[in-house]
Amino acid sequence: MTTPETGILPQHLLGIEGLTRDQISLFLDHAERYASFGARDAAFGRPLDGRTVINLFFENSTRTRTSFELAAKRLGADVINMEVGASSISKGETLIDTAVTLNAMHPEALVIRHADSGAVALLAQKVNCAVVNAGDGAHEHPTQALLDALTIRLRKGRLEGLTVAICGDVAHSRVARSNIHLLTTMGATVRAVGPRSLVPSGVRAMGAEIFHDMREGLRDVDIVMMLRVQTERMQGNFFPSAREYFRFFGLDREKLALARPDALIMHPGPMNRGVEIDSDVADDFERSVIRMQVEMGVAVRMAVLELLSNRTGREVVK
Amino acid sequence: MTTPETGILPQHLLGIEGLTRDQISLFLDHAERYASFGARDAAFGRPLDGRTVINLFFENSTRTRTSFELAAKRLGADVINMEVGASSISKGETLIDTAVTLNAMHPEALVIRHADSGAVALLAQKVNCAVVNAGDGAHEHPTQALLDALTIRLRKGRLEGLTVAICGDVAHSRVARSNIHLLTTMGATVRAVGPRSLVPSGVRAMGAEIFHDMREGLRDVDIVMMLRVQTERMQGNFFPSAREYFRFFGLDREKLALARPDALIMHPGPMNRGVEIDSDVADDFERSVIRMQVEMGVAVRMAVLELLSNRTGREVVK
Amino acid sequence: MTTPETGILPQHLLGIEGLTRDQISLFLDHAERYASFGARDAAFGRPLDGRTVINLFFENSTRTRTSFELAAKRLGADVINMEVGASSISKGETLIDTAVTLNAMHPEALVIRHADSGAVALLAQKVNCAVVNAGDGAHEHPTQALLDALTIRLRKGRLEGLTVAICGDVAHSRVARSNIHLLTTMGATVRAVGPRSLVPSGVRAMGAEIFHDMREGLRDVDIVMMLRVQTERMQGNFFPSAREYFRFFGLDREKLALARPDALIMHPGPMNRGVEIDSDVADDFERSVIRMQVEMGVAVRMAVLELLSNRTGREVVK
Repeated sequence: MTTPETGILPQHLLGIEGLTRDQISLFLDHAERYASFGARDAAFGRPLDGRTVINLFFENSTRTRTSFELAAKRLGADVINMEVGASSISKGETLIDTAVTLNAMHPEALVIRHADSGAVALLAQKVNCAVVNAGDGAHEHPTQALLDALTIRLRKGRLEGLTVAICGDVAHSRVARSNIHLLTTMGATVRAVGPRSLVPSGVRAMGAEIFHDMREGLRDVDIVMMLRVQTERMQGNFFPSAREYFRFFGLDREKLALARPDALIMHPGPMNRGVEIDSDVADDFERSVIRMQVEMGVAVRMAVLELLSNRTGREVVK
Repeated sequence: MTTPETGILPQHLLGIEGLTRDQISLFLDHAERYASFGARDAAFGRPLDGRTVINLFFENSTRTRTSFELAAKRLGADVINMEVGASSISKGETLIDTAVTLNAMHPEALVIRHADSGAVALLAQKVNCAVVNAGDGAHEHPTQALLDALTIRLRKGRLEGLTVAICGDVAHSRVARSNIHLLTTMGATVRAVGPRSLVPSGVRAMGAEIFHDMREGLRDVDIVMMLRVQTERMQGNFFPSAREYFRFFGLDREKLALARPDALIMHPGPMNRGVEIDSDVADDFERSVIRMQVEMGVAVRMAVLELLSNRTGREVVK
Repeated sequence: MTTPETGILPQHLLGIEGLTRDQISLFLDHAERYASFGARDAAFGRPLDGRTVINLFFENSTRTRTSFELAAKRLGADVINMEVGASSISKGETLIDTAVTLNAMHPEALVIRHADSGAVALLAQKVNCAVVNAGDGAHEHPTQALLDALTIRLRKGRLEGLTVAICGDVAHSRVARSNIHLLTTMGATVRAVGPRSLVPSGVRAMGAEIFHDMREGLRDVDIVMMLRVQTERMQGNFFPSAREYFRFFGLDREKLALARPDALIMHPGPMNRGVEIDSDVADDFERSVIRMQVEMGVAVRMAVLELLSNRTGREVVK
């Protein structure tokens, strides 16, 4: 498999914001090739053979870590997993010292998740390997948006011209933010749907329309993208219970009927069944592409790691 | 190394119960080839090169996880370890969603340990990769029984016609259950030996004889297979202390003298020295094959993973 | 890459004490070759392909574990990480049973860290694979001393004739002990510098001079090697605060001015900035070689693992 010219890509993937249509397409096109292999064949070679990818997770996420780990290993890379918390950082080492230490081990890429918005970008300034943001606070989760886009593109044939409803706790969701940036850049229409206090008016500036009535928000959309709701956040929103939240903003057959008949159902996982989504809808495998999202996650991360690794002239720290 | 025709094997290895003599022999014969390499040579190739094995442990077990990890890596597979508890499941994701998510990453096999009997079989119904039960509740631990059988076969030349005493907490032991199924299927005579409350009468229906006197139970046996005792379970059995338990049911030189002179001593580990087994006996390396069991564990798991992986026509989930 | 004749090396690397000048040089010369690859190229082949290295850490250390893991993987080995504590040992298994169990899985090497001085040497007697001490109590941390020596040698061209000040909590430091043994063996002059209660008079017998005044201790040295201070240990030393400790024994520009103008600054990490070292000095990348130490750590561990693995005639445990 030949690798496309990557001069147009940034050194790091810190977010979708700021990426051009061409850059996003380059990631998606490359990922699509891996997707076609079912992502489990070794037929595409091992382009990162002998290279190292370090997963540096300051926040626990078995699902995302596993997806990156698998992606890197399928490319032939050696993978080091570091779940930080109890270890170096707790010994009083600064965040930056940790990153600089790892950088001195010459990884090809550092995949970083952190609970604070902006922490990943800060670390990226201090290292000379490629940094991939695996989620930072409520800021961005760029590979999630890319895998969502790849899933949509494979099922709908395009992104441009589609109407996508992103529903639920938009305010606290890095998944929502990255998706709004990506989808609007690619020419889709994005609706942010949710209770008043969970959909900040700021998303309008990002190009999204706002709906506080789920039924209105879902009308005639091509894609229903549900977000994970955190129970503690429902409290301040006058929902006395998860059941009550579900009545207004949970996706069930009745609300889904308002979307286009061929609308796809998406969820970044893990799902709160019976809170933001009904099991009946989640498991409707004609329209629910939730499993396919997981599958595309590995393909997208393979593409990102390979494209960002394919760089030359990086200095050796001494 | 050529692989035998595997059409006769089930898709998953969920337990020994229900396996035929031929199926068990196929696993053992294949494992024996790996055993002969000392399981550390690369001479047998890397039949799972480019494939992925996921260790999904809902219950902590460094020893078993390590053995499976090593087996998969020696076959050339990429291995992902997931110790679940604090992670996805605690976020409210269902057990099944976790398995389905991992399945969507297209592993060749899922190795699953779970504290509940039957949980592994439940998950196996939801995925299309091979599932290997690495221990589920008090139900089965099939690879342990296979490694025990391989150890016996290599040392005694056969299983048929041997008399095996399985001693201790039979009631709560998946190791005991899997071994009783395997050994009776292969034509060995099995004795379940232990205090009344730790040896349920139900084992008779599985083909085992019951002994509540350790000395009687050990008389003229070829194999003494000790089980791990959990201290909290001794309490309800009128043993005021571990010392007291040891007096009646711990294996020491004196009780061992009743077995055949060439009887082998086995233990699945980790041992409670001084509770169910005396150090003097455990470390008698002419008769104790406890280390060899560990060694055969890697060979058996290599065989199981390879034989179950060698399947075609599995559907890709989309 | 051809491997030097290793007959002169011991089976295990348990400490620097007792190693000859030739043995130390052999490790350093071999490591230097890996260092020249920037330790990230696959050009040196995969000499441990198909072999297994087990990291057995009874004490948490993400940094050291990562360095060993990376080193082993770059040599092509399969790596198993075991962080023991909650697992086997807590089930009542003895330390020795754990090591014997792992040995039966036929690793090429066991890399062991333990909180007790001497525990690693004890385990080494029970196994037949190579054992590398990754730090045992306040006893030794031999690969740290080797990586420090390699860093010095690459920057200064030699070890012999240099004056090295090892500063801080010498009493509790395995890093200090291993470095004193190595540096004195290689013909360097070593000064142990720190408050009276943190520098035991016993280091004199190891060949070090003692200084309780930091300024005197640093005068005209070629190398300033700072140690990590544990805050709780300052209390018994009449330092009411970290700030107070820093005033007397922390490395800052003013104290550093007493060393030679080309003196190197070293620290094994992780640093307590503002306690034993000033950020201004730590980040002076003309003289601070702290990042290079991390880099050389991987090269040294590659060399150690390869040289100790290249042994024949090891018995297979049965």
